[in-house]
Amino acid sequence: MTIEADFGLILKKYRNKVELSQEALALKCGLDRTYISLLERGKRKPTINSLFTLAKALDVKPSTLIEEIEVKYL
Amino acid sequence: MTIEADFGLILKKYRNKVELSQEALALKCGLDRTYISLLERGKRKPTINSLFTLAKALDVKPSTLIEEIEVKYL
Repeated sequence: MTIEADFGLILKKYRNKVELSQEALALKCGLDRTYISLLERGKRKPTINSLFTLAKALDVKPSTLIEEIEVKYL
Repeated sequence: MTIEADFGLILKKYRNKVELSQEALALKCGLDRTYISLLERGKRKPTINSLFTLAKALDVKPSTLIEEIEVKYL
């Protein structure tokens, strides 16, 4: 699996945890809903800036999202 | 300061810590030296994939690099 695919699964997990739709998360982040969908399907590689924006909206630390990915690679 | 500028300073700090030139780090990562220079000057926003590639070459956890940035924003 790719890093962006892992990120997508984690993004969806945290989005569901805070009970936000893709639309609501996109609105909260000032991002486009289709971008959220593409990220969740691992079709886009987020920048660390998007990582910080999304983490803030999901009320989780950016490093926590990265830790969940890196356990698979380290 | 921007997130990418903070990342650039941290990237340079860890690169110096392992005593690698930009050229040597670029070679180790399979990235272009000019990209390393642009990153260190905060002129490029790295993807999380570049974050993982750079962290591996610098022998540091990706989440550690992110933690050093996020302390300034959280």
